[in-house]
Amino acid sequence: MIEIVSIGAELLTGQTLNTNAATLAKALLKEGYSVQRVVTVADRHDAIKEAIEAAMSRAPFVITTGGLGPTRDDITRRTLAEVFETKLTYDEGVARELKKRYGDNLETLKDQATVIQGAEIVPNPLGTAPGFLLKKGGKTVAVLPGVPVQMEGMLHETVLPYLIREMPREHFQKALYLLLMSEQHVDPYLRELEIEHPQVDIGICPAYGTLSLYLQTQATSQEAADAIFAPVLEALRTKFKDRVFSETEGQIESAVHETLRAAKKTLALAESCTGGRMAARLTQISGASDYFLGSLVTYSNHLKEAVLQVSAQTLQEHGAVSEETVREMLHGTLALSGADYAVAVSGVAGPTGGTPEKPVGTVWGGIATKEGGMFVTQFLAKGKEKRSLVIEYSVTFLLGHLWRFVKLGIPPFEAS
Amino acid sequence: MIEIVSIGAELLTGQTLNTNAATLAKALLKEGYSVQRVVTVADRHDAIKEAIEAAMSRAPFVITTGGLGPTRDDITRRTLAEVFETKLTYDEGVARELKKRYGDNLETLKDQATVIQGAEIVPNPLGTAPGFLLKKGGKTVAVLPGVPVQMEGMLHETVLPYLIREMPREHFQKALYLLLMSEQHVDPYLRELEIEHPQVDIGICPAYGTLSLYLQTQATSQEAADAIFAPVLEALRTKFKDRVFSETEGQIESAVHETLRAAKKTLALAESCTGGRMAARLTQISGASDYFLGSLVTYSNHLKEAVLQVSAQTLQEHGAVSEETVREMLHGTLALSGADYAVAVSGVAGPTGGTPEKPVGTVWGGIATKEGGMFVTQFLAKGKEKRSLVIEYSVTFLLGHLWRFVKLGIPPFEAS
Repeated sequence: MIEIVSIGAELLTGQTLNTNAATLAKALLKEGYSVQRVVTVADRHDAIKEAIEAAMSRAPFVITTGGLGPTRDDITRRTLAEVFETKLTYDEGVARELKKRYGDNLETLKDQATVIQGAEIVPNPLGTAPGFLLKKGGKTVAVLPGVPVQMEGMLHETVLPYLIREMPREHFQKALYLLLMSEQHVDPYLRELEIEHPQVDIGICPAYGTLSLYLQTQATSQEAADAIFAPVLEALRTKFKDRVFSETEGQIESAVHETLRAAKKTLALAESCTGGRMAARLTQISGASDYFLGSLVTYSNHLKEAVLQVSAQTLQEHGAVSEETVREMLHGTLALSGADYAVAVSGVAGPTGGTPEKPVGTVWGGIATKEGGMFVTQFLAKGKEKRSLVIEYSVTFLLGHLWRFVKLGIPPFEAS
Repeated sequence: MIEIVSIGAELLTGQTLNTNAATLAKALLKEGYSVQRVVTVADRHDAIKEAIEAAMSRAPFVITTGGLGPTRDDITRRTLAEVFETKLTYDEGVARELKKRYGDNLETLKDQATVIQGAEIVPNPLGTAPGFLLKKGGKTVAVLPGVPVQMEGMLHETVLPYLIREMPREHFQKALYLLLMSEQHVDPYLRELEIEHPQVDIGICPAYGTLSLYLQTQATSQEAADAIFAPVLEALRTKFKDRVFSETEGQIESAVHETLRAAKKTLALAESCTGGRMAARLTQISGASDYFLGSLVTYSNHLKEAVLQVSAQTLQEHGAVSEETVREMLHGTLALSGADYAVAVSGVAGPTGGTPEKPVGTVWGGIATKEGGMFVTQFLAKGKEKRSLVIEYSVTFLLGHLWRFVKLGIPPFEAS
């Protein structure tokens, strides 16, 4: 059981999302440790002290993030020295290292080389603020900076190895990611499985078009855990055989990435209502250029004509949000790019622009192949009448069908 | 002083970011209330009870989110009834309303119409789970569901009006957003200003290319606060006159959106390394089609040639990440789209693909006008050697220069 104390006024104004807590929780869970509480407080001495002491009273291991930089708000070190009944001291070793990396004129040298006496130093290869490991009465506090990329590096290089060495893992976990299913249709089956397999807890987490399932169990070893998971995994893989798109990574774009790279096939897109979001999700992953040729984000009708050769007549007779337009977008994309697969999408993302015939959330999408296959469908991003959700759902829906098509050979948009 | 108790196991596994807490904090701050603590706990009776009671002991107003749905994990209502020494009861009025909206066969009717006796019902127009307002000994707890869009609606329709009626505001706030400045260069001036104007606190929050400044003061009325803010705002507007891009909205894409719409000018993009992200950020805002024509996400060299008419020779001699390529991308984009402005970008997003001459983070970007103006620069997304940060920084940098150009007439990429 681990508790996180997130320190920083910016987290309490809503300007900065607490991604550090999520990053920590994910990494810890993977190693078999659960986070039981996250407490977020401002850079105030009393609040920090109270939060850390309360966390230590409940959990054997506490991780704090934030408040280690040299600006006047950063009082985490001072407060921790107090909690651990020690003091701050200038550390020659840390100073030497900082000088080596930043030169003799580092303005914040004196501040950043001031450490908590008696603490183990957690090196910070990406920044000036070192972290700390503090121990007292069987409790450990790991103190990390708030800058996400620094925090994450120090977590993986120092804190996790320490934790794994010092604390027995609490449980084992296995994930399974489903596509194009809704929680209501999956949950009842999970509850049946839990009754059949009482050693396994199954959590479910929906994310606009995908479902993440998390199996958890207590076991003495990974092998024992695998044996417990095996029949449950088998049952899930069978029940949802054309829906399991990954057992390692919950983003459908990762599955598309892996599948197209492995198949040595290329992809090009024509996006209207998704406005580049499909391309952006695919290109977030390093190596996308191996299969991803590009996206023609033809937001205006003029660009649909000029770039994709959609005919003016089609646009006038059927509108941009229509089967005919999507078909011509697919043709144009294949012709321009020479890609093996093309995906096209045009819809009403809202909140304005809806009509009685084509309400907000009405989306036409299609998938085509170089060989002449073409599949087009209309779907409703139902209950998702928020612009960003219509966009995300449309992207996931189409990438999901593309993945099933390329990986499993299932023709897109077939009812099942 | 308000505390938030976020309830939900999915928040402690890192799968779901706690966006509700940030949404609440932002909305509350705007009305003059500070959030002093956010506590996140799982759907466990003891943890929920302890967290709510501790929050009530510190703060007069507590908001909980999550745990109101009909699945077996959701025990928030039961726990709250206990904290408030009351019980759960079936509410005919709530049931009637649910039947009206969802029909007589709503499976979860019995559960969702079960409310906390004595609580004021907070209607949920977008879902089945009503919220509650509970009062005891001068303390109020507002109980809201975890689904963000439902939570937000109920906050604005019921909870905020209630809060404004019942609790005096703590302070007044004013924001100011700066572009293309780093925290180190701005912070010293803010500290000077605070010394000159001791009634005003100035917070700063960097976000990859932009800085949000938050002025805060205590005052008896909005007019009194405005008078206190006036000289500070004047000083900031003068000092950073070509950097203040907004006083209402911290996203540079919103400023571009407003400015281009007002100027009745159109924009088209050619994106390589940003992979559609620039288009996606612009089209997240409803009404983008008024000025945004599209983006030619030419990730492959072939598409740069086929769509944008970048010459094969240029690509071969100078590479895709070069001034020459970006210039041709700009020409191609203007020619295809007929837009008033074009922005093009090509760079090494990493983590692979860097070379000694063009390390990861090397980006060429340009802005061109229909009238023949063309500005191209190379910049380094320095210290941002993470793929997503190189992409975000590049987008903000280029949109920032575009905004300054269109709004203030400052030629892009001039040193200042």
